[in-house]
Amino acid sequence: MALSDIAFKRIEAIVGSPRCTRRPEERICYAYDAAAGRFMPDAVAFPENAAEISAILTLANAEGFFVVPRGSGSGMSGGAVPVQGGLILVMNRMNRILAIDRENLVATTEPGVITSAFHAAVEKEGLFYPPDPSSSDFSTLGGNLAECAGGPRAVKYGVTRDYVLGLEVVLPTGDRIKTGVQTTKGVVGYDLTRLLVGSEGTLGIITRVTLKLLPLPASVGTMTAIFPLPETAVETVSEIIRRGIIPRTLEFMDNASIRCVENHLKMGLPMEAGALLLIEADGNSEETAKTLDKIQSLCRGHGASAVHTAATPEEASALWKARKAISAALFQYAPHKINEDIVVPRSRIPQIIRRIEMLREKTGLFMASFGHAGDGNIHFNIMLDKSDLEALKKAHTAVAALFDYTLELGGTISGEHGIGITKAPYLLKEIDPGALSLMKRIKKAFDPNGILNPGKIFPES
Amino acid sequence: MALSDIAFKRIEAIVGSPRCTRRPEERICYAYDAAAGRFMPDAVAFPENAAEISAILTLANAEGFFVVPRGSGSGMSGGAVPVQGGLILVMNRMNRILAIDRENLVATTEPGVITSAFHAAVEKEGLFYPPDPSSSDFSTLGGNLAECAGGPRAVKYGVTRDYVLGLEVVLPTGDRIKTGVQTTKGVVGYDLTRLLVGSEGTLGIITRVTLKLLPLPASVGTMTAIFPLPETAVETVSEIIRRGIIPRTLEFMDNASIRCVENHLKMGLPMEAGALLLIEADGNSEETAKTLDKIQSLCRGHGASAVHTAATPEEASALWKARKAISAALFQYAPHKINEDIVVPRSRIPQIIRRIEMLREKTGLFMASFGHAGDGNIHFNIMLDKSDLEALKKAHTAVAALFDYTLELGGTISGEHGIGITKAPYLLKEIDPGALSLMKRIKKAFDPNGILNPGKIFPES
Repeated sequence: MALSDIAFKRIEAIVGSPRCTRRPEERICYAYDAAAGRFMPDAVAFPENAAEISAILTLANAEGFFVVPRGSGSGMSGGAVPVQGGLILVMNRMNRILAIDRENLVATTEPGVITSAFHAAVEKEGLFYPPDPSSSDFSTLGGNLAECAGGPRAVKYGVTRDYVLGLEVVLPTGDRIKTGVQTTKGVVGYDLTRLLVGSEGTLGIITRVTLKLLPLPASVGTMTAIFPLPETAVETVSEIIRRGIIPRTLEFMDNASIRCVENHLKMGLPMEAGALLLIEADGNSEETAKTLDKIQSLCRGHGASAVHTAATPEEASALWKARKAISAALFQYAPHKINEDIVVPRSRIPQIIRRIEMLREKTGLFMASFGHAGDGNIHFNIMLDKSDLEALKKAHTAVAALFDYTLELGGTISGEHGIGITKAPYLLKEIDPGALSLMKRIKKAFDPNGILNPGKIFPES
Repeated sequence: MALSDIAFKRIEAIVGSPRCTRRPEERICYAYDAAAGRFMPDAVAFPENAAEISAILTLANAEGFFVVPRGSGSGMSGGAVPVQGGLILVMNRMNRILAIDRENLVATTEPGVITSAFHAAVEKEGLFYPPDPSSSDFSTLGGNLAECAGGPRAVKYGVTRDYVLGLEVVLPTGDRIKTGVQTTKGVVGYDLTRLLVGSEGTLGIITRVTLKLLPLPASVGTMTAIFPLPETAVETVSEIIRRGIIPRTLEFMDNASIRCVENHLKMGLPMEAGALLLIEADGNSEETAKTLDKIQSLCRGHGASAVHTAATPEEASALWKARKAISAALFQYAPHKINEDIVVPRSRIPQIIRRIEMLREKTGLFMASFGHAGDGNIHFNIMLDKSDLEALKKAHTAVAALFDYTLELGGTISGEHGIGITKAPYLLKEIDPGALSLMKRIKKAFDPNGILNPGKIFPES
């Protein structure tokens, strides 16, 4: 299903020649995302509205070529790469925030809006959009929806799906539909909205989004706690929740992550610490102060060697900069990264952390773990040179073992990155064959000719 | 597709003869739900586990009979009635709470657990399950999931779908699958969990549920505010939210609803009031008191003639008893009820309330409105004698006009009751044909032979 010359000419007729290209130097920019792998598309187009996208998808069915939608390419599982070639639809030009409705706490946007720009726009109105993936400075809302992005605030506020009320979508057939509602409640027909969220660009192309907002909390307090041992840090996480305290973030960094950030940013983090918790509370100012007090005394009671509250918003923001830098900063250790985002029930994080320690000792590989301990969501990274085939083999064996153990503990192999191509080989570890077969029938119901984002999610059969 | 004698004998072989029946006096108990309409099933069975349900659905495909799952029959749109006959599966015997996990804030239950029994069980552990439909004293969790029940606390805490993490389901084909996860995050494959929630028993039969819980708020405060005019009451609702205050409930009753409850319960409610708001705040005790203070002064500033805080939990509970009694108490006015649960964006409630007034004046019908004003979700009721055909015709015309206006205001024709049979004729007012056709393809992907709960959601073509 390569893109024919005739098909390309028709795409040009739809979007205009300045907004599509087949030049190799442009195509290569869209051959990769934040996951491993590079796959050249046959062409790239930059649609500006749903009508163009609908015409392109109709054409794709008629001419038989693949279409792969793409935001900023910050996805971690290969969701945006054209593994079987075809046309990349770059959604970034559809980047208008159409309405922010303070009275009803909703916003309507196009999918290409950058997540942090959306945060800034709603916060200016005294409103709050909680989902905040680490890539928020460059990821798009459309990409966040496609992957059901999570991020640190999910422990209190939930994930992207919890904020999506309605969509406008172009189906793979070219049909344009609306799903969902503009209100918090709505139960008319099947929940297509939440089926599309997290479907990794395989069921439709989102062209408009209605998002639920909250009032912006009056105050946010940020603190760190340093622990000699990672186990005691994560036991503290469980204890905080067990006491009925739900902070707005509850982030964990292991020693390798701390060292990595400190080498990179020189902020004075303790290089010898076993683990660091980065915790935020929000609410009115008294409530925030009280919550942080309680958490600090729990941290001390569980053996924290140092507990510190950020004195200024700048200091808090520097701490978050450190946290968000980890993923990229890890490349100082090795040219390649294998990056998994497992989740286990919160109380079982100590077990998964111990298992990671064992795997590190057994394989001798460089591993760093950090993430959203408050939801049991740990980003587990192996840094290596993939040309070292022995290391690569060990790494794959370690990942498979960790996935098995994660599932044994009642967890999931992906909390927020999705399956894409990188986790497709492991899908059947988690999903039973009956559910997989049903998912394939759903894909077929949306995309009878299989033209949209092929080769994703489902393991090759 | 009537149930044959052979098929019934096979059902008997699956569940045992004490747990299935064809006696008319037993069948008639399962011929209706809380909506209009009575449809006799051919037989009734009381399964006790997923294996039995799977065997029955497999048989239904082979023998060609319909199967309709049913909880307590408290649904408001006819979701549980066998409109085309067949076998009723009464799910109430699968009523065990299997686990309440305090450390991870999750519970696992069977679908037949009564909602309020579940509330009591988790509250005993210091935990909180917010969804609280007015029928909670008799509705089942499985029914709540099938309809995506809402209730008064949705304004702060969201609806049923926001608390469902994972399911075990028997598909219409008889296949048994697991969906979702046991953790807050999880993005592995398509979101079957939330597709099944709100699918009104047409896509699968839920046999086990994993629910997310919250810590139980330390305190709850309850207040009422009496307004001379309904418009000022609902304008106050908007103003509360505009100020960034999200109370846990924000309920509205119009004069007809107030009178109705007062006649029924004799609690001393003001019979002449234009409207009453029933508001709850929760959090720690200071926070609760502060929030109620702010709301009370907003109510006074907007013309409330009386504002009152419940002094004791007993008084608060009496107020809720009054609120929950409205729906049934309305039958003092007429033998039949047409009951709709429209939603509009919160700021547009004054408009919809004025339109209801106009319709009341125009038709001369008895109308009562009450509901979850905090989410813009109004239960609009017409009380009448359906043998008065002229009144019935006027009522249907009024409902259709109100639906049109609701959609014009950016609302939805059902916030929590679902479509079932009562709203199916109106579905295409809200859902576009492309989305409807996709929903039918999804139904086919789940239920190729159309054996599960036929005749629901989709308008007759």
